[in-house]
Amino acid sequence: MPKAIPSRAEDYSLWYNELVKKAGLAENSPVRGCMIIKPYGFSIWEKMQQQLDIMFKNTGHENAYFPLFIPKSYISKEADHVEGFAKECAVVTHYRLKNDKNGKGLVVDPDAKLEEELIVRPTSETVIWDTYKDWIQSYRDLPLLINQWANVVRWEMRTRLFLRTAEFLWQEGHTAHATQAEAVSETKQMLDVYADFAEKYMALPVIKGVKSESERFAGAVDTYCIEALMQDGKALQAGTSHFLGQNFAKAFNVKFTNKEGKEDLVWGTSWGVSTRLMGALIMAHSDDNGLVLPPNLAPIQVVIIPIYKEEEQLEEIAQKVDKIRNSLISKGISVKFDCRDTHKPGWKFAEYELKGVPLRIAIGPKDLDSGTLEIARRDTKEKKSYPMDGIEDKIQSLLTKIQSNIYNKAQHFKEQNTYQADTYAEFKALLENKGGFVYAHWDGTRETENKIKEETKATIRCIPLGGNEESGKCMVTGNPSTKRVLFAKAY
Amino acid sequence: MPKAIPSRAEDYSLWYNELVKKAGLAENSPVRGCMIIKPYGFSIWEKMQQQLDIMFKNTGHENAYFPLFIPKSYISKEADHVEGFAKECAVVTHYRLKNDKNGKGLVVDPDAKLEEELIVRPTSETVIWDTYKDWIQSYRDLPLLINQWANVVRWEMRTRLFLRTAEFLWQEGHTAHATQAEAVSETKQMLDVYADFAEKYMALPVIKGVKSESERFAGAVDTYCIEALMQDGKALQAGTSHFLGQNFAKAFNVKFTNKEGKEDLVWGTSWGVSTRLMGALIMAHSDDNGLVLPPNLAPIQVVIIPIYKEEEQLEEIAQKVDKIRNSLISKGISVKFDCRDTHKPGWKFAEYELKGVPLRIAIGPKDLDSGTLEIARRDTKEKKSYPMDGIEDKIQSLLTKIQSNIYNKAQHFKEQNTYQADTYAEFKALLENKGGFVYAHWDGTRETENKIKEETKATIRCIPLGGNEESGKCMVTGNPSTKRVLFAKAY
Repeated sequence: MPKAIPSRAEDYSLWYNELVKKAGLAENSPVRGCMIIKPYGFSIWEKMQQQLDIMFKNTGHENAYFPLFIPKSYISKEADHVEGFAKECAVVTHYRLKNDKNGKGLVVDPDAKLEEELIVRPTSETVIWDTYKDWIQSYRDLPLLINQWANVVRWEMRTRLFLRTAEFLWQEGHTAHATQAEAVSETKQMLDVYADFAEKYMALPVIKGVKSESERFAGAVDTYCIEALMQDGKALQAGTSHFLGQNFAKAFNVKFTNKEGKEDLVWGTSWGVSTRLMGALIMAHSDDNGLVLPPNLAPIQVVIIPIYKEEEQLEEIAQKVDKIRNSLISKGISVKFDCRDTHKPGWKFAEYELKGVPLRIAIGPKDLDSGTLEIARRDTKEKKSYPMDGIEDKIQSLLTKIQSNIYNKAQHFKEQNTYQADTYAEFKALLENKGGFVYAHWDGTRETENKIKEETKATIRCIPLGGNEESGKCMVTGNPSTKRVLFAKAY
Repeated sequence: MPKAIPSRAEDYSLWYNELVKKAGLAENSPVRGCMIIKPYGFSIWEKMQQQLDIMFKNTGHENAYFPLFIPKSYISKEADHVEGFAKECAVVTHYRLKNDKNGKGLVVDPDAKLEEELIVRPTSETVIWDTYKDWIQSYRDLPLLINQWANVVRWEMRTRLFLRTAEFLWQEGHTAHATQAEAVSETKQMLDVYADFAEKYMALPVIKGVKSESERFAGAVDTYCIEALMQDGKALQAGTSHFLGQNFAKAFNVKFTNKEGKEDLVWGTSWGVSTRLMGALIMAHSDDNGLVLPPNLAPIQVVIIPIYKEEEQLEEIAQKVDKIRNSLISKGISVKFDCRDTHKPGWKFAEYELKGVPLRIAIGPKDLDSGTLEIARRDTKEKKSYPMDGIEDKIQSLLTKIQSNIYNKAQHFKEQNTYQADTYAEFKALLENKGGFVYAHWDGTRETENKIKEETKATIRCIPLGGNEESGKCMVTGNPSTKRVLFAKAY
């Protein structure tokens, strides 16, 4: 049997770590804080990438590639940006190693010191806006809608596979616009794209909102975000979309001539999601037996396992499977026939359960006689026998059902774990005993926000979008508030 | 009109640089030696990636992701490898910046010095084989067939867009096998995949061979390569596939238990192609008017340009185009209708010529009357009128023709510029006056190879594969040789 993982109730954190490793998703590397994304984990990330890339292109964006390194001086050009990103970054100071004369082995060559240090990009606004300066002259050059798939590095001290790593993979969109309205609308459009992706593909219900000032991206005027709830009652920020105003245009002197012939600063946005989404996907749906993958992102949607004693039986099974497999593939369903003779069926069942394959089909000699097969659903663990005839349609409809069932389950969980608190005492009790999302009134000040964070470890996840205005009083200071904001402990 | 580029005859090198910039492929970045791949250039690279990725997966490989950083000590573990890669690399020594107390701005924080320096990966054999140590125990874990798409950094002093840059994008395959025979066969299989890709997609004829010892990858037992000929008579190495023997298994102690229960070192391969292929693609086919793209890699295969005076005419044209466009898309042909009113048709013609779009269609009022349209081929510059009825099939067959015509042209060029030299004097004269590929006898020693390189700047591109044995005498020393090897000046 594949090694079992601890239960969520036992140790949620250990459950997550072990699941990530044992399901073949990722592992720690010898380089502190950097992870190795293993083939199975990477194949899920590839599915995410492919779908997001389609959605970005459908909204008019093109991909490009900008340098890994950013000159130190660039980071300083936008005042808020430097505060946010200079603190934890990988700094390249030299460009050569040499053999030490005293036999100490390979050492940094002091003669190969860079005149200006280079930062490994933590995000690319600076180097991209420096480039946009040359690409944008007139309103005809706008909007400029560019995305980049890349690796970035932020020197995190406490790291966890996928959730927080020194190096991670992501996409970063960087757009430039002639008007504020257009840039704001782009920011919101990309937030909607992220929310759509989370809900339709990751089966993950999210809350859309805008960050409070203290949680804003360094250099942004407004940071929009989607927030999801994990099974341990903690929130996870799953994507952000920033309205940059003219901040980077100012810092890098990016101007354009508008239709009236006047010069103006360009308006900007940036938006990104990362391999962190893998963490969200894993934590939102999986159970004590392993991963539960929504069919829309499962690299293997259907696994077929033969049950046989004699070689002849396997051959007969393989013939049936071949027909089913081809017809599934022609429907765009990914299917794996695992006929390895090195492992027993029971071992394989546990393995694909651990790996979250949505549908497992078993075919044995009795099935051949009766023209049936057994299908097990990963999400409900239901097992049922079906006739082989017309099984392809059944499989397709089951996959659709599983996708929505996983979403509904997560949505139900979110509803069950969303509260309103009217007093600070109630708020504290909720967070201590139940966790989850808590809506409460806040006076809008950074002081109150900090006090709540210090005393409860909960942060304002977002000020939700949409018309849920409700006048009330801040639960801490009693000062007036026009809307409840969303609090939670968070990853 | 889009700005013209210099002709190849005038200044080949300037022609290339200007073409790369003006066709929107890439440009230099503020970071020395790093390039910015612009959207149009990146869309060609994406097409290359997608096709190669399919070919890798069809040959059983999976993608994964390994860290950007490599601990300094890892680089030293394989003796040849360190010689090849420690000399020019980006070294991360610190992990924080801070504001200088004396107002000098942002400085490296001396308190944030890494205990062990990190190298930005120039290639990933070391960190990957260190991982394989944990992934491989038994013959059941083999073969391990993994590929990674990544950025790498080699601190080049003289850089040229796509051809030689400090940071470049590539894929690196890293496989592990139980036997030498299997690893050698994998090495050759991947060479064949590269050659197939070059010929069928890039329309680039290549010569397959194996490198001489001095040109071998640092740490390999044998380096196989494909070599292509550019229009200036210089060779370009377009891909390499390395048989690593047990070198990295030894260095990182990667052993497995074979079927007989005995422990043995694992056999390895690695293979890669990079954004350098973009350079090859551009230089092999383009002309003085701009890029010439083989249809199989053209992001836009067909551009349609309306020619009109009145808005009504445009509407009528757009209606016709809509039908054609939809039917082309359903055939998998990418098509762009450029109806911008900000640019004249003549400007657009020149623009798409510069960008190498294989087919350009013009439709004007006369065409509407006669039910025709005009198609211009980028490769031959031929223009011809065709009836609109059934135009989709015509377009499809034209694209196929262009693909093979571009290949045939390059093949013809290669044949015309491939020579045999029997004496060193003849060899020198050929290289001086004509360039191109020169087959000559060589005695197999490093001394002779170096002498030839110093005196003529030509290097041994490869010892060609295949049965072209021919006994002869080294053109320099007169010592015996069993086969002619391929010489050329090279990028």
